[in-house]
Amino acid sequence: MSTPQASSLQAEVDRLRLQVESLQVKDGSEPIAIGNYLLARLEQLKVTKMFGLPGDFNLGFLDLVEDHPTIDWVGNCNELNAAYAADGYARVKEHSIGVVLTTFGVGELSAINGIAGAFSEMVPVLHIAGVPSTTQQKTKPMLHHTLGDGRQVILYDAYIKAAENFSISQAIITDKNTAASEIDRVLTDCITRARPVYLTLPTNLVYEKISSERLKIPLSRLPPPNDPDVEAFVIDEIAKLVEEAADDVIILVDACAIRHDVRSEVNELITKTGFPVYSAPMGKTAVSENYQRYGGIYVGSISHPDIKEKVESAKLILSIGCLKSDFNTGNFTYSIPTSRTIEFHSDNTKVQYAAFPGIGMKELLPLVTARLHACSAVARAVPVPDFTAVIPQEDNNVISQAWFWPRVGRFFQPKDVIVAETGTSSFGILDIPLPEKSVFVSQILWGSIGWTVGSTLGAAFAARDMGLNRTILFVGDGSLQLTVQELSVMLKHGLRPIIFVLNNSGYTIEASRFLHGKERKYNDISNWNWTGLLGVLGGTDVSKSYTVTTKDELSALLDTQSFADAGKIQLVEVMMPKFDAPRALVQQAELSGKTNAYVAI
Amino acid sequence: MSTPQASSLQAEVDRLRLQVESLQVKDGSEPIAIGNYLLARLEQLKVTKMFGLPGDFNLGFLDLVEDHPTIDWVGNCNELNAAYAADGYARVKEHSIGVVLTTFGVGELSAINGIAGAFSEMVPVLHIAGVPSTTQQKTKPMLHHTLGDGRQVILYDAYIKAAENFSISQAIITDKNTAASEIDRVLTDCITRARPVYLTLPTNLVYEKISSERLKIPLSRLPPPNDPDVEAFVIDEIAKLVEEAADDVIILVDACAIRHDVRSEVNELITKTGFPVYSAPMGKTAVSENYQRYGGIYVGSISHPDIKEKVESAKLILSIGCLKSDFNTGNFTYSIPTSRTIEFHSDNTKVQYAAFPGIGMKELLPLVTARLHACSAVARAVPVPDFTAVIPQEDNNVISQAWFWPRVGRFFQPKDVIVAETGTSSFGILDIPLPEKSVFVSQILWGSIGWTVGSTLGAAFAARDMGLNRTILFVGDGSLQLTVQELSVMLKHGLRPIIFVLNNSGYTIEASRFLHGKERKYNDISNWNWTGLLGVLGGTDVSKSYTVTTKDELSALLDTQSFADAGKIQLVEVMMPKFDAPRALVQQAELSGKTNAYVAI
Repeated sequence: MSTPQASSLQAEVDRLRLQVESLQVKDGSEPIAIGNYLLARLEQLKVTKMFGLPGDFNLGFLDLVEDHPTIDWVGNCNELNAAYAADGYARVKEHSIGVVLTTFGVGELSAINGIAGAFSEMVPVLHIAGVPSTTQQKTKPMLHHTLGDGRQVILYDAYIKAAENFSISQAIITDKNTAASEIDRVLTDCITRARPVYLTLPTNLVYEKISSERLKIPLSRLPPPNDPDVEAFVIDEIAKLVEEAADDVIILVDACAIRHDVRSEVNELITKTGFPVYSAPMGKTAVSENYQRYGGIYVGSISHPDIKEKVESAKLILSIGCLKSDFNTGNFTYSIPTSRTIEFHSDNTKVQYAAFPGIGMKELLPLVTARLHACSAVARAVPVPDFTAVIPQEDNNVISQAWFWPRVGRFFQPKDVIVAETGTSSFGILDIPLPEKSVFVSQILWGSIGWTVGSTLGAAFAARDMGLNRTILFVGDGSLQLTVQELSVMLKHGLRPIIFVLNNSGYTIEASRFLHGKERKYNDISNWNWTGLLGVLGGTDVSKSYTVTTKDELSALLDTQSFADAGKIQLVEVMMPKFDAPRALVQQAELSGKTNAYVAI
Repeated sequence: MSTPQASSLQAEVDRLRLQVESLQVKDGSEPIAIGNYLLARLEQLKVTKMFGLPGDFNLGFLDLVEDHPTIDWVGNCNELNAAYAADGYARVKEHSIGVVLTTFGVGELSAINGIAGAFSEMVPVLHIAGVPSTTQQKTKPMLHHTLGDGRQVILYDAYIKAAENFSISQAIITDKNTAASEIDRVLTDCITRARPVYLTLPTNLVYEKISSERLKIPLSRLPPPNDPDVEAFVIDEIAKLVEEAADDVIILVDACAIRHDVRSEVNELITKTGFPVYSAPMGKTAVSENYQRYGGIYVGSISHPDIKEKVESAKLILSIGCLKSDFNTGNFTYSIPTSRTIEFHSDNTKVQYAAFPGIGMKELLPLVTARLHACSAVARAVPVPDFTAVIPQEDNNVISQAWFWPRVGRFFQPKDVIVAETGTSSFGILDIPLPEKSVFVSQILWGSIGWTVGSTLGAAFAARDMGLNRTILFVGDGSLQLTVQELSVMLKHGLRPIIFVLNNSGYTIEASRFLHGKERKYNDISNWNWTGLLGVLGGTDVSKSYTVTTKDELSALLDTQSFADAGKIQLVEVMMPKFDAPRALVQQAELSGKTNAYVAI
């Protein structure tokens, strides 16, 4: 394995070469259509699936996608679901990106909430919009999908303006001479900054030929190198604080450890040093939840008391990739003073109150590990609470929230991908240790209900690519209704997720009933025949559906080998009481309720 | 009936009174919560339904909606569908508006394509977003549904910036003192300019009490009065041209005649003058299609030859509310020189090449009618083609497009609301005369597939309010998959639309297969069990579903009294050949294909 410095320098060399390449006019190199240039880059990024819908301004490009040997067209039911799928794919398929293709105006706007979610939660997604030809963009006829009005003013750029709010860079391809460098620029931003980028592809440029020379140089996914002097200073500062803390140090892992690709660096750090490690909700499964020095989930005042005490009393906290949103912090109730915190981020480091911009964790963490290695003996003496989930003994057969989550916890296997909808599911699963090499997928910051259904589609494709195990979804009946059609795309492609539909008659679980309006009709939803659903969506032979109403029924099902083997797509409707909710959600709702309080009438 | 001038002056008086009111500080008037002030205004605008989803930043307002005596909460399955429903409601419920309520970020962005469609097609829709409290808007904590990043920069205004592209005015309510005038301002824009407006309602202001004094003055829906001198000049010019044309004049009615509320003025004009009248696709049913001087649909080179000849050879064309988009004009193939055209718009008039800004048709048309009244005898001599649809005799039992549309044409009844999805349905129905007082609903300019499903929900509610007859939807299997869950909302509310699902295995009908990629897999979709769908969505007892595969089966069904009576929600899966399409769509596709041509590989 090369050292961080060498890899980083290689990345810099590649970047500079690309820059030189774009300044030189290359003749004689193999020409390639712009559409195929883009696909070649995506193939290099190990993209195997493209999500989206056909529309009249992307059909030419779609021909190229359909003919591509390693990238498959998925074909979603609608664009929002497609964006969700691209997001789920990118989360599970590390070192790759999610790609969604839509058409001009109607398609791209339908996808925008999905893209905004990826922006918010730092997920690398490329949004390609097929747009009218460059000629039409100049003459601006009142085409369908435009915002035409009686005065012939047509806002062709309205969609770009909208996209700018929810992507970190945009490439508006209008010139074949800059197309390749523009494509490379946004893709590099996407992979190094882990956020969505937006690219428009006009109908008349898809087949325009350009030089393929640049493709020989791979895009760099490494961030710019840290300044060695500053880095050395930061390491000294960290070592000093660790020494002062007499090794009473804990590590807190969060979302950006996953998003910015430092799982293995974090793993090195925790195993070499032996410091106790905890995770924020959005960092769940960033480190193994079976690791003996792992203490569970810290989420401010909502944490289990033992975890809360251990984290907040530590003399020093190494916080890796933190993302302090309301639901990720127990409504901002961290009790950790800045003076006891070191924050590692993708592009900066904070040591107590001192900020070190430009010092990113990808390079820094291995150096910190090397330096702190020696202190492991003392560190290993710091006790860590056991992270286990006990199935409670209840004297009835009702499937309570308190019973359900530990029980399904026993059902999980190593390498499962576990997708949890915002609300009941994401809160309920927090307290459950997930198995070795499992992947937890949830949208805790953006919290768009229905997201998991599209996301599960993408996650299941990625799981197949990554050699992972089953994909298991937990979703409420209310949430599933938002995006339900995407189940048919799973069926079409022979995916075999297990879908637990928590049926508690409404948006109870999706936060709102517990936040407000417990008895209000607006939180009720209509009851569907959930077990008939997969059959209607095209899956009579390749699916199986169940309803369970008691603990015994659910347990029996979970213990059935053929069910656990997941040979077909399976849907389990779990009947649960309307006004029950997981511990953590109830506490979160109480905290949110205070800040959201409406003045009484 | 008051004269146009008197009504217009009254509107001006009301507007000025409101302005005075907002400048005066009123004490002692009945206080009202801001949320209820908004609802009171909506009630005055005859709004009876509010579409949308609950979310934690709109729950306080939702309590007020649920408690309101005349405005019902619909509760959609997702926000895009809710926006589509608000759009459909506004189209059918003349003199009212559509209202959609979403939550901050996730909800409002999911709705944005629906709002953009209403913007494009000029439909008055109010989008209310429930947002965090004004305090949170200032301190900007990283709440869920925000675009938080590791550096704590939170783009609370990103959603407003996005909304600005797709609404004509925005009211960002942050101050109780200006809340009422802000609400009135955007609602006035909405009703006078017939386009979407956007309003944010922070949690902490919903119950804040303000003066209710302004509510005594109704909002004015009339545009500002025309300048009498200019108006008189314009009328003289028009009269002169009509005289020169020796009454060889035709009238062409388009979308804005409906959107800007001049149906009755147009009706006066055509019946008093006797000029032949034609309609553009987006103006279909603006005037009665059974009127003896109505000649059918003019759509440039795609028109029936007889209609094309009659329209294009007329010496003068009075064009009312035209909207010259590609699909509305046979891909811009109008053959009508400007020198023979007078264009009437909501806020301007064009006489040949001369523009008269500020001269709106609402006031102008009655004066033109009064002036041209005398020429009717000569005008009535100009022949008008018969607008009829003949059911072709075919020597097979396959349900062809050529046979289907005239056949269902016989099924329609007066006052039916007929909703046609973009593509096969909207093109197929063009040639079919619709009955007296029927309402044609289609999204010809924006063309977002799946739109009709949400739109039908809203249209069906509006039809009930307006004392109309059945609501009948024509939608392709591909389009229905985008928005299918909204059928369950129809079931929940006991609506009874008749839904024809044109099953031809893919996006054939939705333009793209005929535009490009005839044999491509990306135009295939998976086949659902359509007749099982309504049962699964909660409608076992209150729905009925059918599959028809032959002409005889369909005819028999259409002739069944219980089917025609529409006592339940009914879904008819119509099996049609994959590569068949209506005449007009094939021609449109050929024209689009030329401009969209991809360079060959």
